[in-house]
Amino acid sequence: MSLYVMKFGGSSVGDIERMQRVARRIVEKQDEGHQCVVVVSAMGDTTDDLIDQAMLLNPNPPAREMDMLMTTGEQISMSLLSMAIHQLGRSAVSLTGWQAGFRTEPVHGRARIMDIVPDRVNEALQQGNIVIVAGFQGMTEEGEITTLGRGGSDTTAVALAAAINADVCEIYTDVDGIYSTDPRIVKCARKLEEISYDEMLELANLGAAVLHPRAVEYAKHHQVKLVVRSSFNYNEGTVVKEETSMEQGVVVSGIAYDKNVARISILGVEDVPGVLATVFGALAGAGINVDIIVQSGVQDGKADFSFTTSLSESGQALQVIKDLRSTLPYREVTSEDNLVKVSIVGAGMISHPGVAAEMFDVISKQGVSIKMVSTSEIKTSCVIEGGNLEQVVRALHTAYNLDTDAQVFVGGPQDRR
Amino acid sequence: MSLYVMKFGGSSVGDIERMQRVARRIVEKQDEGHQCVVVVSAMGDTTDDLIDQAMLLNPNPPAREMDMLMTTGEQISMSLLSMAIHQLGRSAVSLTGWQAGFRTEPVHGRARIMDIVPDRVNEALQQGNIVIVAGFQGMTEEGEITTLGRGGSDTTAVALAAAINADVCEIYTDVDGIYSTDPRIVKCARKLEEISYDEMLELANLGAAVLHPRAVEYAKHHQVKLVVRSSFNYNEGTVVKEETSMEQGVVVSGIAYDKNVARISILGVEDVPGVLATVFGALAGAGINVDIIVQSGVQDGKADFSFTTSLSESGQALQVIKDLRSTLPYREVTSEDNLVKVSIVGAGMISHPGVAAEMFDVISKQGVSIKMVSTSEIKTSCVIEGGNLEQVVRALHTAYNLDTDAQVFVGGPQDRR
Repeated sequence: MSLYVMKFGGSSVGDIERMQRVARRIVEKQDEGHQCVVVVSAMGDTTDDLIDQAMLLNPNPPAREMDMLMTTGEQISMSLLSMAIHQLGRSAVSLTGWQAGFRTEPVHGRARIMDIVPDRVNEALQQGNIVIVAGFQGMTEEGEITTLGRGGSDTTAVALAAAINADVCEIYTDVDGIYSTDPRIVKCARKLEEISYDEMLELANLGAAVLHPRAVEYAKHHQVKLVVRSSFNYNEGTVVKEETSMEQGVVVSGIAYDKNVARISILGVEDVPGVLATVFGALAGAGINVDIIVQSGVQDGKADFSFTTSLSESGQALQVIKDLRSTLPYREVTSEDNLVKVSIVGAGMISHPGVAAEMFDVISKQGVSIKMVSTSEIKTSCVIEGGNLEQVVRALHTAYNLDTDAQVFVGGPQDRR
Repeated sequence: MSLYVMKFGGSSVGDIERMQRVARRIVEKQDEGHQCVVVVSAMGDTTDDLIDQAMLLNPNPPAREMDMLMTTGEQISMSLLSMAIHQLGRSAVSLTGWQAGFRTEPVHGRARIMDIVPDRVNEALQQGNIVIVAGFQGMTEEGEITTLGRGGSDTTAVALAAAINADVCEIYTDVDGIYSTDPRIVKCARKLEEISYDEMLELANLGAAVLHPRAVEYAKHHQVKLVVRSSFNYNEGTVVKEETSMEQGVVVSGIAYDKNVARISILGVEDVPGVLATVFGALAGAGINVDIIVQSGVQDGKADFSFTTSLSESGQALQVIKDLRSTLPYREVTSEDNLVKVSIVGAGMISHPGVAAEMFDVISKQGVSIKMVSTSEIKTSCVIEGGNLEQVVRALHTAYNLDTDAQVFVGGPQDRR
């Protein structure tokens, strides 16, 4: 007998029929002799419907009241799912976030979990119940209802799995698992059997939206074994854990990309100590996240450097640089928006030198120029022109032997709540 | 400055526009210098929609999970109303039943309030907030979410008014107040300025569905001054309180009726001691509520008697009597369904003898025969043939000088949650 945490997202419980399917799935797990704790998101469009109603009454609603409103979504789906399980002759108990013992910091809309006291979850399990917990929500010490923000339901599942010492945390979604790259671009993308937390983090951050990075970080920190799998079929999913059994010859596990990239270049800056600190201190002060930073060589005491940021923050970043001109003289500042970042990710890169060089070679053979490069122990990223994205991803996927014969069915958009 | 509890039912907050109207109404009350605590029901059809979804998944859902589901209705409406008030530039805080301190007995679907600890309500008031509380719900000592059942939101408002020592508890609904009789039958029914708790209880129990009897009982017990008024206009409503200033010549305040009446007659019963105890003990054991009981004279050692019950319970009551035949011999049992009960209600009846006799006279002058009679200190009820209901109600209304010149607009069905 194992203890499972099973998380079902909004699309998995999007209507009555899907709710019934999920109920059967859970009962099957119990029939295999396991204990089940289920974390559930709001049904399909519920969240959007609630937001629409709120906006009609107040385009800028107080975060506290939005949390009050939004948490009803999970409370509805958890109680309905419990009823569906009862209909199958099993006993189930649904618990709100606060009933399940989720204590959060006193912040609305994006609270972090401070502590979990899962006494009622454990008690209900011991009484033989299937326990259903509302994802995405918690309560402050003062008894205020909070939400965890984006990725909140994944994080709920992982945190609960850690708190009750579950053997596995299964994340049910509408794809079969984690893929070597986006199947919408590469039809012969391969489903990974295993992936490490760090690789998953790189893939999650780089745009593979199946698992929220916050949940992966939590899983890594608490060493929770994750399985990402489909709620619509019985295929084996992808296991996310600390150490993966390195497959023969697999150095690169996946190809990720990010379309949300802007580059800002500052040309002809006086090369004096503290220049970078001034620039990036000012950007950080404005709350702008900077990703890749590249400084070119110095000529005649003047340096050029550039950095990337998200598209939505690039306008603000440009303004920060322009405001700096009086204190930090430079010749010119430029920005480019039509860019993407392509990354190869793989724990095997640590022990295989030359992987980055091979990547540059593959990209250049496509006749595509590399604008910026960034590396970490398990990742190499290149910024290129946006128009070349699909071509480059396919070439890399083939070059690193990731292609399979099978074609992947691509489902609807992920639920990321 | 007075402290108001204002209760708005589901039809008063049935859509976005009505929600905005209610928000303005509350802000106006605050503008008059008062403190406001608002109790709100689920929006219009929300409750029915939730029940429909539940029934699709489980035609016989567990009461605990139904409470989980149903309480989201008030949580949605309270948070939306709070947002609407914020949009008008005022600060408001919404609180669930458990946050507002409602402790109930551990029963689902129809819990009674055991205790209210309104610390958070008082605290939020002291901070200058309009406080919005979810009607109809509470929490057990063990942290289980419960609902109060029918009339629950009225009861929430009255109980909260008692707990925070409010000056007035206003029940906003879709009629102007309490009427001397059903305006759908008597167009010139008059709105009562005042009515006593006991009169209101008789009227509420007898079918005037504006206020739930449970809430009136609570108000009487805690001496909470109630005002029943419309959320759609600014007309003065009806004040419900202990002592009313007896208006000149007003002995009868209202005419009530109940269409949900069945009569069962047992004929030729052996007149031995304990007969009535046997019959009504058996009925009580089967959970059947009996209203009026009439025993006729004894002839040849045999007695006839009859009683009324609700239509829905009459079949079961008949079966109980048939099952008794072996232990309690009788000649015949009959039942009639096409009956109504008409009642005159008035605190003034105590000091005015002959009111009942006048009622019998009015009814007989209509050529209608009276089948059963029941009296209390402030009420006289007659059971008559159903087809005569409207004619008799109009005649009594006129006879007791209750007619006005004005005609009453009759709104939609009441929200009784």
